[in-house]
This record gives sequence, C-alpha cells and structure tokens, in this order.
Amino acid sequence: MNKVGKQSIVFKNKPRFIGGYSVVGPKEGQGNFGRFFHTVLKDDLFGENSYEAAESKMMQTAFFGAVDDSGLKSSDIDVFFAGDLMNQIISSSFAARSFDIPYIGLFGACSTMAEALLVGASFVDSGYSRNVACATASHFSSVEKQFRFPLELGTQRPPTSQWTVTGAGCAILGEKGADIYIECATVGKVVDWDVVDVNNMGAAMAPAAAQTLKAHFSDFGRTPDDYDLILTGDLGKLGSEILFDLCEFNHIKLSNNYGDCGQMMYTSSQRTFMGGSGCGCGASVLCSYILHRLRRAEIKSVLFIATGALMSPISSQQGNSIPCIAHAVVFRR
Amino acid sequence: MNKVGKQSIVFKNKPRFIGGYSVVGPKEGQGNFGRFFHTVLKDDLFGENSYEAAESKMMQTAFFGAVDDSGLKSSDIDVFFAGDLMNQIISSSFAARSFDIPYIGLFGACSTMAEALLVGASFVDSGYSRNVACATASHFSSVEKQFRFPLELGTQRPPTSQWTVTGAGCAILGEKGADIYIECATVGKVVDWDVVDVNNMGAAMAPAAAQTLKAHFSDFGRTPDDYDLILTGDLGKLGSEILFDLCEFNHIKLSNNYGDCGQMMYTSSQRTFMGGSGCGCGASVLCSYILHRLRRAEIKSVLFIATGALMSPISSQQGNSIPCIAHAVVFRR
Repeated sequence: MNKVGKQSIVFKNKPRFIGGYSVVGPKEGQGNFGRFFHTVLKDDLFGENSYEAAESKMMQTAFFGAVDDSGLKSSDIDVFFAGDLMNQIISSSFAARSFDIPYIGLFGACSTMAEALLVGASFVDSGYSRNVACATASHFSSVEKQFRFPLELGTQRPPTSQWTVTGAGCAILGEKGADIYIECATVGKVVDWDVVDVNNMGAAMAPAAAQTLKAHFSDFGRTPDDYDLILTGDLGKLGSEILFDLCEFNHIKLSNNYGDCGQMMYTSSQRTFMGGSGCGCGASVLCSYILHRLRRAEIKSVLFIATGALMSPISSQQGNSIPCIAHAVVFRR
Repeated sequence: MNKVGKQSIVFKNKPRFIGGYSVVGPKEGQGNFGRFFHTVLKDDLFGENSYEAAESKMMQTAFFGAVDDSGLKSSDIDVFFAGDLMNQIISSSFAARSFDIPYIGLFGACSTMAEALLVGASFVDSGYSRNVACATASHFSSVEKQFRFPLELGTQRPPTSQWTVTGAGCAILGEKGADIYIECATVGKVVDWDVVDVNNMGAAMAPAAAQTLKAHFSDFGRTPDDYDLILTGDLGKLGSEILFDLCEFNHIKLSNNYGDCGQMMYTSSQRTFMGGSGCGCGASVLCSYILHRLRRAEIKSVLFIATGALMSPISSQQGNSIPCIAHAVVFRR
C-alpha cells in the first residue's frame, strides 16, 4: 500500500525531477527571482495577438525548455499534465495541441502545479509513464479581465489584492536521471471559510493550506523541522501571516524555513501590495530558483504546497463564498 | 512497466467498478434510457436558485448514490476525481466542498468521465487509494448560456447541433468488491482538424475519437471484435458517422457493437437533432444502463471512449478552431 494516513501517498520508486524551465513577464523579470528565470519576456504579448495566446505560448516555451533541460526529446515524454486559470483551461489545451503527446487536463486554480506534480509523479512511480511533463501558466492581463475587471477601466486595487504573475513553469519527471526526486504527496480537501472577497485570495486560501499541512504532518508523523524549506505557492503577505496563525493554533510551528513564492516574487518598490499570485507564480519559482538550489544541494528537502481558490466569476456573482484547496508534494535529494 | 505501446496503460491489479449512480433531468428521463436512470428530476432546478447550483447538487447526489450502491461509506472514499464543463469546474469543486474527501479537479470537457476513470483507476491500481469516486455532470441550461446564447433569446438551433444532457454520473472504483474491473486505458492526444463551428461538436470531436481508437487497437494489438461494446460518449449522429468513415480509412471496421450515448439518449420525437452531448451524457449512461448490463453479464467487455471539445467561448471568439481529445478505458468482467 502506498497510501499513508488519511490524505497522503508515498512514491516508492522515487520519480525524479529531471528538468525544469520558467518563462515570465517583464515585471517578474525585475523582481527578486529575475536572474533565476530562464526566459524573461520583453513584451508580455510574446508576439501574439491576445494575452490568452501569449499565455499558451509561454507554457509551450516552458515545456520545450524543460524537455531540453532534462536532456530528453519531446518524444520521450509520455503524458503532458497541465492546467491553468483560463475558462476551460485553454492555455494548456492549446499548448498541448502543438505537441504530439497524450494530455491530461487538470484544474486546481493556483494549486494546479502541485496537483500536476502529484498526479504526474504517480504515473512515473507506477510505471504507466517513463517521463511526464507537468506545467501551468498564468498571465496578469488574461486573468484580470476574466476574474475581475477589464484593465482599461483602471480600477483601483484594494490593499489586500495580489498581482497575478505572468509566468509559466514546466517540470519533467522521469524514472531516472537526477538526484532530486518526489518522495511523497498530500492530496488536499476543499476548505471554505466563507470568505467572499475575490480581492483577498490570501485569506480565502490560507485555511486550505493549514488543513493540508496539518494532514501532511499527521500522516507522516513529521514536523516543519523535517524540511529545509516549506514553500507555499501564492498566499501572499496576508495569507502567509494567516497561515502562521492557523498553524500555531494547530500546534504546528512554522519558522524561518517557511517562504511563499507570491510574497517573495516582487520587490517592495513594485507596489503589488500583498505580492504575486496565479498558478504561474509557484510553478515559475519552483522550476527555476528552487530547482537551482536543490541541484546545488543548498537545500535537500522541500515541502511544496500550492493553494488554489476554486471560485468562478459566476459562482461569486451568485453570492457564493470561495472554496479553496491545497495540494503538497515533497522534493528530496 | 504498465505502459503499453505509445498511449496506453494496463492496470495489473484490476481496479473494480463497485458502484454507480446517475441523476438526470426530466427530458432525459423521457428518453431511451429513462427506466435505467436512478434519479430522474421533475424540476431541472432541483430546488436550487440557479442551474449551476442544480448541476452541482446533481453531482453530489450521484456521489452519495454511488457510494451507497457500492456498499461503502463516504469515509471509505480516499479521493474524489471530478470535472465538468462550467468555467473553473465549479460544479465539481462546490460538490467536493460538501464532502470531507481529498479532491483532484480535472478538465477534459466531455471526455472528463473517461479521464476521471483513467486517473482514478491508476490511483486504486497503484495502492495510493483503496476506493475512489469518479464523477462528472452537465446541465443543458448552465451550458447553453455559458457556451452559446442565453436561453431567453430563443435562438434557433442549427441541424448539426446536439442537446446538452442534464445529467450526472458517479462511479466508485475499489480494490475489491465486484466482478467488473477496469483492465486498461488509452490516454488521448489533442487533435484539431480546424472545425470552428461550435454548433457541430460531433464533426470537431470525431477525429480525436478516431486517433485514440487507432492508438488503442495498435497498442494492444486488438480489433473492434475484441469487445462486446464500443461506446463513445457524445459524438451524436453526425459525429458517429464521421467516426465510422475515419475508422474505415484507418482499416478499423466498426460494426454493430458500436454505439454512442449521445445518439441513443433521446427518442426521435424529442427533436434534439444530432442527439445528446455534455460530459453528463456518457457518465449517466455508463453508471446506469451499461453498469446494469455488465452486472447481468449481458455484455462482458466495454471499450468506453469519451470525447471532449476543449474550446472556450474566448478561444472561439478569437477565431481559433476547436482542439479535441478522447480518452478510453476498458471495462471487463
């Protein structure tokens, strides 16, 4: 049995993290991780006619870059696991259209990268696939107009808001080829604490992160000290603070080994308020800076936990609160 | 290695199909499968204030019904795999909110039931889960307004159009508990033959079904005669005819053992033109009529292949053609 505790699974054959690539927009390139990203766009339309097409092209670019980084060919990839924030995940499906590779579409909002890694690792671990690609992308301009307001309106952003990262990340997992592997994962449950403010994603998502962390530590009998780094995807400044409080309430002591990709993405002068968000946020940081540090053995164990807010504009307009989820995967070397 | 050929996988531990349940709307209840569906709604709002909420409640009802049918309790279900056609798959996420169960959100448009069964079976086969639930739902009224026109407009339907099925289906897969099992699966690739007409889903999706069928027969060295039934999800009348032609072109002879849930869903007097569509179409038929026939051993092997059209209203408005996909799973007893 590879099931551990209530929500977790262990990958006994240690699927390897053999390649990664990140593509980000100009603003992200000027942020704190700028020098670690593989491709920084000069123009966030990426030569396309729409932001949606640009987002899809970023994911394609990340895929080919990651395949290259892994030393494989596209034809060595057995399944492409991907998802994004667009309605009907068109960025992923249109990216998949340009590859001749079986495709599994996923939706977990901003938790999608962890979800893709979890399901992708299970396919490699079980011998269903030799190598898989796991990817997500988000784009500030496509997301804002879909979930909030048209950019042309110039709507004032509230202080709790986050800036959707223009970014894509792709990870290649394989049976062999690297020291870094995915050890285990925790599948999230939907958690909804009745937050209705779509400009406060951090507050909505933090309880889901806390639930998954609690389940993870309980399932494996571990504590935060068992990891060199505990990294959330895009809780932002406020969401991270709420997560700290919720963890303390659950007798889980997060400390200096905790970080959030959203909170760290931009410099304070970039005025993004609570920091970055979007499924491309955690994915682009994981496949660049984090992979870099794992490869150099500066860190040897990472608990990557990506949170997603599962509302749609329609569900919000109909007065519903925001259901959230968080999936976690553990990288080791 | 459980990988077979280029696109297929085999489940060596034979995940069992231990429970199923279907919920459909009034029109579907008057159709050809009426007496096989478990719950037929009198009112397609299902007591809710919106069609979206009704769709989500249908999925919840299908889940609890399927759990009951399998003789298990909700707490025995380790992961809920689900997806639907709504933006950000809110029907699934809001259904999952009402269960205390880990959740993996999927998107494959109308192929989602096969996708959920494929990934769900892999979790049971590999020992990551003891039992899983796989579910999808669609609703005529929520889908029409999202993808085409508000119903109030009374827009005339073109002759190639299909009627989105108001229906939900949920299947429970487990390590043991039934003679029926999922033997293997074929993961689809995105296929796009430049169809742009969102009122002709059958023509858009048929090439994807043909690609997956071709890969399936090639990977396993089988022919259509190796199955008692080859069942597509919702190609409809025109799509099924195109699939016949494409298969013939590929030297695959489909015959009387082929059927399409969409084509068979309604009676001719129900005037749905090409038949039913939507991810709830194949799911509701599979979890009722097909499961019934498998249990009675009237059929002993079913190749279930669900096709999905992966466009969004935005991708279509931006002038893109419709990328499609088809996933296949094989049931045996």
